[in-house]
Amino acid sequence: MNELHAVDLAAGDPATWRITQHGFDVDAQHHSETVFTIGNGQMCVRGSFEEGYPDDHPAAFMHGVWDDMPVSVTELANLPRWWGVDLWFDGQRFRLDTGRLLSFTRSLDLRTGVLSRSVRWEAPSGAVVELGFERFVDFSSPHRAAVRVSVASDRPVRVRTRAGLDAHVENTGLLHWRLVGQDADDAVAWLHTRTRATGIDLGSACAVTLDGVEADAVAGGTDGVPTVEHTFELSSGRTATLTKQVAVVSGIDASSPATEASRLARDAAAAGWDALREASDAAWLRVWERSDVVIEGDPEAQVALRFSLFQLLIAAPRFTEHASIGAKTLSGFGYRHHVFWDTETFMVPPFSYTQPEIARNMLLYRWHGLAGARQKARANGRRGAQFPWESAGTGEEVTPTWMVDPGDQSTLVRVWTGDIEIHITADIALAVMQYWQVSGDDTFMRDHGAELVLDGAAFWASAATSEDDGHFHLRNVVGPDEYHDRVDDNAYTNHLAAWHLRTAGSVAVWLAERHPERWSELAPALDLDAAELERWSEVAQAMHLPVGPDGLLEQFEGYFALTDLDVAELRDPARTISMQQRYGFEGIAATQVLKQPDVLMLAYLLPEEFSGEALASNYAYYDPRTDHEHGSSLGPAISAVMACRAGEPEVGYQHFLRAARADLLDVRHNAGDGIHGASAGGLWQAVVFGFAGLEVTADGWHTTPMLPKHWTRVEFGFDHHGVHRRVVVEA
Amino acid sequence: MNELHAVDLAAGDPATWRITQHGFDVDAQHHSETVFTIGNGQMCVRGSFEEGYPDDHPAAFMHGVWDDMPVSVTELANLPRWWGVDLWFDGQRFRLDTGRLLSFTRSLDLRTGVLSRSVRWEAPSGAVVELGFERFVDFSSPHRAAVRVSVASDRPVRVRTRAGLDAHVENTGLLHWRLVGQDADDAVAWLHTRTRATGIDLGSACAVTLDGVEADAVAGGTDGVPTVEHTFELSSGRTATLTKQVAVVSGIDASSPATEASRLARDAAAAGWDALREASDAAWLRVWERSDVVIEGDPEAQVALRFSLFQLLIAAPRFTEHASIGAKTLSGFGYRHHVFWDTETFMVPPFSYTQPEIARNMLLYRWHGLAGARQKARANGRRGAQFPWESAGTGEEVTPTWMVDPGDQSTLVRVWTGDIEIHITADIALAVMQYWQVSGDDTFMRDHGAELVLDGAAFWASAATSEDDGHFHLRNVVGPDEYHDRVDDNAYTNHLAAWHLRTAGSVAVWLAERHPERWSELAPALDLDAAELERWSEVAQAMHLPVGPDGLLEQFEGYFALTDLDVAELRDPARTISMQQRYGFEGIAATQVLKQPDVLMLAYLLPEEFSGEALASNYAYYDPRTDHEHGSSLGPAISAVMACRAGEPEVGYQHFLRAARADLLDVRHNAGDGIHGASAGGLWQAVVFGFAGLEVTADGWHTTPMLPKHWTRVEFGFDHHGVHRRVVVEA
Repeated sequence: MNELHAVDLAAGDPATWRITQHGFDVDAQHHSETVFTIGNGQMCVRGSFEEGYPDDHPAAFMHGVWDDMPVSVTELANLPRWWGVDLWFDGQRFRLDTGRLLSFTRSLDLRTGVLSRSVRWEAPSGAVVELGFERFVDFSSPHRAAVRVSVASDRPVRVRTRAGLDAHVENTGLLHWRLVGQDADDAVAWLHTRTRATGIDLGSACAVTLDGVEADAVAGGTDGVPTVEHTFELSSGRTATLTKQVAVVSGIDASSPATEASRLARDAAAAGWDALREASDAAWLRVWERSDVVIEGDPEAQVALRFSLFQLLIAAPRFTEHASIGAKTLSGFGYRHHVFWDTETFMVPPFSYTQPEIARNMLLYRWHGLAGARQKARANGRRGAQFPWESAGTGEEVTPTWMVDPGDQSTLVRVWTGDIEIHITADIALAVMQYWQVSGDDTFMRDHGAELVLDGAAFWASAATSEDDGHFHLRNVVGPDEYHDRVDDNAYTNHLAAWHLRTAGSVAVWLAERHPERWSELAPALDLDAAELERWSEVAQAMHLPVGPDGLLEQFEGYFALTDLDVAELRDPARTISMQQRYGFEGIAATQVLKQPDVLMLAYLLPEEFSGEALASNYAYYDPRTDHEHGSSLGPAISAVMACRAGEPEVGYQHFLRAARADLLDVRHNAGDGIHGASAGGLWQAVVFGFAGLEVTADGWHTTPMLPKHWTRVEFGFDHHGVHRRVVVEA
Repeated sequence: MNELHAVDLAAGDPATWRITQHGFDVDAQHHSETVFTIGNGQMCVRGSFEEGYPDDHPAAFMHGVWDDMPVSVTELANLPRWWGVDLWFDGQRFRLDTGRLLSFTRSLDLRTGVLSRSVRWEAPSGAVVELGFERFVDFSSPHRAAVRVSVASDRPVRVRTRAGLDAHVENTGLLHWRLVGQDADDAVAWLHTRTRATGIDLGSACAVTLDGVEADAVAGGTDGVPTVEHTFELSSGRTATLTKQVAVVSGIDASSPATEASRLARDAAAAGWDALREASDAAWLRVWERSDVVIEGDPEAQVALRFSLFQLLIAAPRFTEHASIGAKTLSGFGYRHHVFWDTETFMVPPFSYTQPEIARNMLLYRWHGLAGARQKARANGRRGAQFPWESAGTGEEVTPTWMVDPGDQSTLVRVWTGDIEIHITADIALAVMQYWQVSGDDTFMRDHGAELVLDGAAFWASAATSEDDGHFHLRNVVGPDEYHDRVDDNAYTNHLAAWHLRTAGSVAVWLAERHPERWSELAPALDLDAAELERWSEVAQAMHLPVGPDGLLEQFEGYFALTDLDVAELRDPARTISMQQRYGFEGIAATQVLKQPDVLMLAYLLPEEFSGEALASNYAYYDPRTDHEHGSSLGPAISAVMACRAGEPEVGYQHFLRAARADLLDVRHNAGDGIHGASAGGLWQAVVFGFAGLEVTADGWHTTPMLPKHWTRVEFGFDHHGVHRRVVVEA
């Protein structure tokens, strides 16, 4: 992948809308499968080849299609393979590890979400074949996709094609599907499968057509694999084109999903490729008009930001309010598609500003999960709603309690985040308030947002413990910096909890005054009375929030007493592993080194509380102690903003590049598991909130630009109270 | 299954060689798949239907083909499905959940290992079809099997058949295979797969022939599923017969296993069904001549014992010394085919007495695992060889350290057996000594057996701790009774350890005197010098072995102080769950109730130390406190022997029946996971060592019969020092 940037990104505007790969690199296969993921906000498919490749990680995922496996493994079931096309030339199966690859170019058009690939391949028989592949997932509706393969040859060649569906797919060695039914005729293959534990039905169908040659279609296949085959002689100079019009429908959306999928596939075939492309392209155009950010003077920054937005847009729930974006989007198996704080803190803001309907869906997903959050609070002896650290289909906690030790596959390590990384409840409230502030969506706030904020506050009031010092404490927690777990009075958590309690008090007043009928419904349902509201105010007031000289915060109780490692080691460019890998779980916890900003993350989120001297002193203390290069992928984008606020945009730009390259250049060597969604969302925030310095307050909005030297112009739009605003910042 | 016994077992001799099922019972499908398992000591296949059935658990396993999955999951990979035959009549797929089932009979001939099934089925088109299925695994050689299907119809019908191989198999949701290659022509389909973690290659092939009608064969399939298809019109009154000659070869046995499998399949097809049957039947005849036990006067006992022996014979390693029999044989997924103490204590004895070459293979399997046992001892700070509680391919410990709580799928329970159920090392030594005593196989003892016994003794000498009371102790162990884990000075463990140390001293003397060259090789290799041998004697002498009045032993330190539950509750026939399920893990551990005999197991194994008053008092105390009905499946057969020794053969017969019915009548509702191998081996011991009272000593052998009243005659054979002896006991 690296090369293409040197070549193409300098090529000007078209290249900044395109990710192109010249030549196939086997070692980067899983990385490029992730990068070339396409989708429509309902279903995504990795960039795995139509014909397959040894040890590839092919996958497609659809929102809502969760399945469970013991122990506590809940994940989206990899969809039956609908994008496959098998080809034989003169009896020899086409695959890039056979024959001879003469040329290879793959390209993703970010404007339209069309993935295309051109291959020249010499078959073992000697024939030189030109193959063209195109695929896209219809952006205008939830269930359709299309695949097209064209073949031509330098001499007469016998071609066999097999296109269909395949239920024999896996989630990294685990099976989620049972076969219910299937069939194929000479035009359409369909498949009906059901998830093993959750019993979700899925219908997949494809209509197969062949143009450019005459050939009879033959239905075939084996159990779980209905197919349509063609065999024909292709003369030199002729091009044959196979088109698969695909539909995938789950039982969540239709009562007879296989019938519905077949109908959609037949209709699409009747309408034709161009009609579907037109509808899809038009939908993309409408979205980019609101979401695109133009950066002039820096093609790498430009394409990286568009790529990040593309990856978020294809994974974001555009057609449902019962799903959100997982930590690794819909582009891989990483974190089993679970939704973390990454979503509200890093990914929701770009949507709140540019696609408010999608941000609303994502927040409604949390609202639908309130029962799970309440159950978690009760199980822990708390009140209100304690949101799960990891959330899947129902809003119940799905964090595994144990994980395999990466260094010793036979050992299990206890995972504490699901028990005590409690800050997520405030992170969600913050996302609600931010959405409300920029959108002015009072209806959402009345019907759903207020409930999220109020019931979360009830959790904080019951979780904070009153102690002899007259303060409230939150002990035994994990803050954003996971190098230090099980700590007392984490500044991030305590400050956000106090902010949440104060904010909830204001929301209660707003609701009672402006929507008394809703308040009179909600207050008894949530057990909110004057005493409870009084308690919120009291806890917020007396929360243990110690402040040192110059406004410096201690990350948690006892942090300053930890070993203060030499900064030179942290900044050693020769280091290739994280500080945690270097010192071990316990070793690194005994030092002041941070996996990611923790106090600075707090300062980022609550700018009104951290300005002037307080901002400067915390930035000066914590930024050098952060493992920017090898710590959390969540850190760099936020560090970029904080560097801007500290008046150091060039330092900020270095952080920005780390986030920009996380997936495109696979700097963490784990992009194969899926896109780093938080990094992608953070990248937009780095540009808009950092370099462009946009701030929306109760009084309106303004910018405080702080562009890197070589950026000549930044232009973006955002929706402010229903009005689309364009912002241009010039150097 | 229950019905058939009422009907058939009373029918006299032929029925006592046959397990027959009339009518198909969906609810018992997994149970009957286990019962109708067939095999040849290298490969077994469950009784799953050729055509499949919804929610069936089809599986075949081959010795040695292990694969790993995190965390510490090592199991035999379910083999690619080679026994499948798909059939369509007038376009309608044949399966018993469609159309109308008019009659169904399935029968397993224990004499020949042939499984047959007759089905009359009305297709949805109205045609009434007669189907006959037969299959067997060639008992005369390791790699071959055959499947035959005949079809006839009451009216002309269009028939389509598809026979091939299928790599899309699973181990209860986990995948073990990668596809390497495949092909099919009009006669043979072959498949080359490789285990994912261990990289074991497997070649499968089948030669397909069709007799009785004219039809062209067509090669076909999809990835992982090479097939040979036939389509033809079948006139009424004609019978078409499809034959699949199968070969399965692993890379352990051949360098090009797929080529070798194809060759074997073609050769078998050339030779024909009858030739293969003849060879297989002859091999079975030779085995039964030595292994059969005749019980007259009790058809149920007769068929149950033959069934148990059959199940052991098909799972026993007849072609390799690198495998043994797992706790659930090769008939299911239970316990992942791991080898426990069940093998040496319950399953090896019948082989030592009737098929000594197989017993030798099973003991050599332990000898090949010595490196793993030594590694385990070293890891625990011990010397010598500490055998793993669960063993798979290499002899390393493969017991999981955690298991999912059956009552709460999200919780893990720590499993202690792999850490501290140490008695298995002495159990293996006991099996070695017993094999040596009855076989007189000095060569084995010199080359392999002595090393097993001596290196195990070194473990015990290093594991026992000397304490202030002047005794050696073994603290924090688990004995056979797993209702009580983490106990001190378990009588079973301490007594067997002392026995093992004394025995090893004698073996050392024997080896030094009779085979000084081997001793001079082994002694330095195992660090055995005079001081070490002296220590063995000292530890054995001073082992803490307290004996109470009348020779009563306390099962472990503190046992007598536990709550002594009312025996009436234990014997309540209305109880349907185990006492552990009733009282919980901790609840039952606080009582004297036993999962299985522990002190009595010791008395069973060391009869010279427990006779007269000591036998009587321990039997009187412990037998009533045992959860015979719902505790361990290992207990009943041994309780049967002990009842005989206590002079109560009718009580013994009740225990015997529990073991006899464990799998045939699925009394524990888990036979679907596989045959209870220990119960099967125990059943032979109950008859031969219990009711017939056979005892082999250094001076020869004798019987002390104690038949149940209705048994008129028992006849069996055993090999004593290379001479086959026939024993007849008459009432």
